[in-house]
Amino acid sequence: MALLQSFIQVHPDSHFPIQNLPYGIFKPQPTSSPRPGVAIGDFVLDLSEISSAGLFNGPLLNNSDCFQQPNLNKFVSLGRPAWKEALGDYTDFFSSLHHTKNCGLIFRGPQTPVLENWYHLPVAYHGRASSVVVSGTDIVRPRGQAHPAGKPSPYFGPSLKLDFELEMATIVGPGNELGKPVDINNAEDHIFGLVLLNDWSARDIQAWEYVPLGPFLGKNFATSISPWIVTLDALEPFACEAPKQDPPPLPYLAEKVSKNYDLSLEVHIKPVDHKDSSVVTRSNLKHLYWTLTQQLAHHTINGCNLRPGDVLGTGTISGPEPEARGCLLELTWNGQNSLSLNGLDRKFLEDGDEVILTGYAKGDGYTIGFGTCSGKIVPAAP
Amino acid sequence: MALLQSFIQVHPDSHFPIQNLPYGIFKPQPTSSPRPGVAIGDFVLDLSEISSAGLFNGPLLNNSDCFQQPNLNKFVSLGRPAWKEALGDYTDFFSSLHHTKNCGLIFRGPQTPVLENWYHLPVAYHGRASSVVVSGTDIVRPRGQAHPAGKPSPYFGPSLKLDFELEMATIVGPGNELGKPVDINNAEDHIFGLVLLNDWSARDIQAWEYVPLGPFLGKNFATSISPWIVTLDALEPFACEAPKQDPPPLPYLAEKVSKNYDLSLEVHIKPVDHKDSSVVTRSNLKHLYWTLTQQLAHHTINGCNLRPGDVLGTGTISGPEPEARGCLLELTWNGQNSLSLNGLDRKFLEDGDEVILTGYAKGDGYTIGFGTCSGKIVPAAP
Ligand SMILES: [Ca+2]
Ligand SMILES: [Ca+2]
Ligand SMILES: [Mg+2]
Ligand SMILES: [Mg+2]
Ligand code: NI
Repeated sequence: MALLQSFIQVHPDSHFPIQNLPYGIFKPQPTSSPRPGVAIGDFVLDLSEISSAGLFNGPLLNNSDCFQQPNLNKFVSLGRPAWKEALGDYTDFFSSLHHTKNCGLIFRGPQTPVLENWYHLPVAYHGRASSVVVSGTDIVRPRGQAHPAGKPSPYFGPSLKLDFELEMATIVGPGNELGKPVDINNAEDHIFGLVLLNDWSARDIQAWEYVPLGPFLGKNFATSISPWIVTLDALEPFACEAPKQDPPPLPYLAEKVSKNYDLSLEVHIKPVDHKDSSVVTRSNLKHLYWTLTQQLAHHTINGCNLRPGDVLGTGTISGPEPEARGCLLELTWNGQNSLSLNGLDRKFLEDGDEVILTGYAKGDGYTIGFGTCSGKIVPAAP
Repeated sequence: MALLQSFIQVHPDSHFPIQNLPYGIFKPQPTSSPRPGVAIGDFVLDLSEISSAGLFNGPLLNNSDCFQQPNLNKFVSLGRPAWKEALGDYTDFFSSLHHTKNCGLIFRGPQTPVLENWYHLPVAYHGRASSVVVSGTDIVRPRGQAHPAGKPSPYFGPSLKLDFELEMATIVGPGNELGKPVDINNAEDHIFGLVLLNDWSARDIQAWEYVPLGPFLGKNFATSISPWIVTLDALEPFACEAPKQDPPPLPYLAEKVSKNYDLSLEVHIKPVDHKDSSVVTRSNLKHLYWTLTQQLAHHTINGCNLRPGDVLGTGTISGPEPEARGCLLELTWNGQNSLSLNGLDRKFLEDGDEVILTGYAKGDGYTIGFGTCSGKIVPAAP
């Protein structure tokens, strides 16, 4: 197939060639009002200008004021493409078998690293939507209670086990009505696209609080996402078969086509005052056991309603190799080992560390990418 | 103190006398646009009319168009009073010791019914905001996976253990910035008021899915709230001392005044085709171990930001007596016993059952109440 050509010059390594038209909200000038845009190379196409100039000629868009809005809600409600500046609900799944197994080995030992329910359903918990922030936002080290093994009582202070989690997330396009589940074979139509997601985690706070109702303050202080939503259409050339599931899923989770995407994912850490960052993880979206569509269909099977702009995190994406582990908990085996960042030792994140996620797929002469999802750790409140 | 007199005649048992001015959103006619109002007796005061007529004479309200809106967001952002038609995030706590102990006895047995962390922090999980519905909305019986003990594998079908949970919820007024915790002794200023809340729960779905990340589809199919927010000011005459906490809480949770409210709570069930409902629970808000202000301060101690309109459920409010248990799980001891509803047996909810929560406090010649929070079970999707 001949490469599509854009009138804008785009470097072959750019994440945003003509094959990838991700949607986001931007300001042309720092003082401008926020508006919808599409990234191409180093440029952003201002959809409000295109629309004002009458350049949309489809029946839905040429009479719509959906791009004269400070967010994409109105555009989203028209169909598959979806985006909200103010996001909806945020859910986080637990869909990588390697991550699940490593966490089980670390916390429960070799008896049953993976619990029985995990193989039958995509396990998930609700996260906090208010603290989902865009890439580049500083992350204040959380304070909280922790209770180290062997100590008689818990103490309060800044987290000593601050971690990242390498994830991606589905941004929901059209939602579903309360009480009306989405069929597994239509689930893809409810996905607008994907972003990178860093589910920052305070392991010491999490370990003490999480029984029996799950993670809360160990997670909800911040979650970072990349600013541009890459559509599934742009990712279709990189679709691949998802892992075979054994035991086979119940009929409501059995899909005609079970699809993952071959998308390279990396985590870089840049310590304060260091010129260079170090790659600490190389993983891939194709390692998910439960697919994006299974996650979405499962979420609605009880009648739960999804809304445009909802965020469905995949859970930490770890691969089978030790260097493909998607968080420091796994990489350092809960602080038993150290990572070396150009000679600096790390068990968990330190103040000043910047964590940068990136994701991309290499096509024939072009790259489909997500840009970056970054955040720098700043000291805890006094 | 002489009773305040209203120009509207109000029955002494009315939930909405002049001493209780709860805020909500109403439509004067079914075809009218939604607008903010205050309930008095059987009447609703239309705040948009009062405002248009220039009858607000305070510096904040007389030049504001905050009541010419289809919701109360703008009013909320002015200060303590707060309400959103589209609610923010929803969190559910687990703050009644009696409920926690009963659940622990049922699920884990008499060894450690209450886990160690429970006495040190208000345990909570994030719920689903999209499926919070107003009183009167029908509840579709959820379908999902369950795995009864002794069976080789899970099955899929309508929940067989559908339950209510008697709760109240804080509606957050002014929020806090990400990274800036709310001090425990200022927490009350962030509470606009309270509503009744029914955290519908499918016990069979919940039991199979909840390890290790907490409840998800067993809860997020629906949560009902009462339509009128009763302010803390209206409840102040019914304030009472909260239970002594042992071990003493860490300093960030230690408050100068530790306050509960003496508020009677009841749950009624009305089976389909029955003229009468039966009272199945008589409890009281004063049974909370962790106070509303401790819940709110804890939620923000890691920097998590609350926003106006956020909903913080208390968790099921059970008292010490068997008839004060706040859900069927406890009342029937997970279906081992039956309740009698005027001669009809119940272990869990059946299709057609209407569950009605109510809450009130009796003053001297007047009643402060919440109206009702009701929902009727309709059959599962086919
Ligand atoms: Ca996660
Ligand atoms: Ca609850
Ligand atoms: Mg997070
Ligand atoms: Mg609920
Ligand atoms: Ni949530």
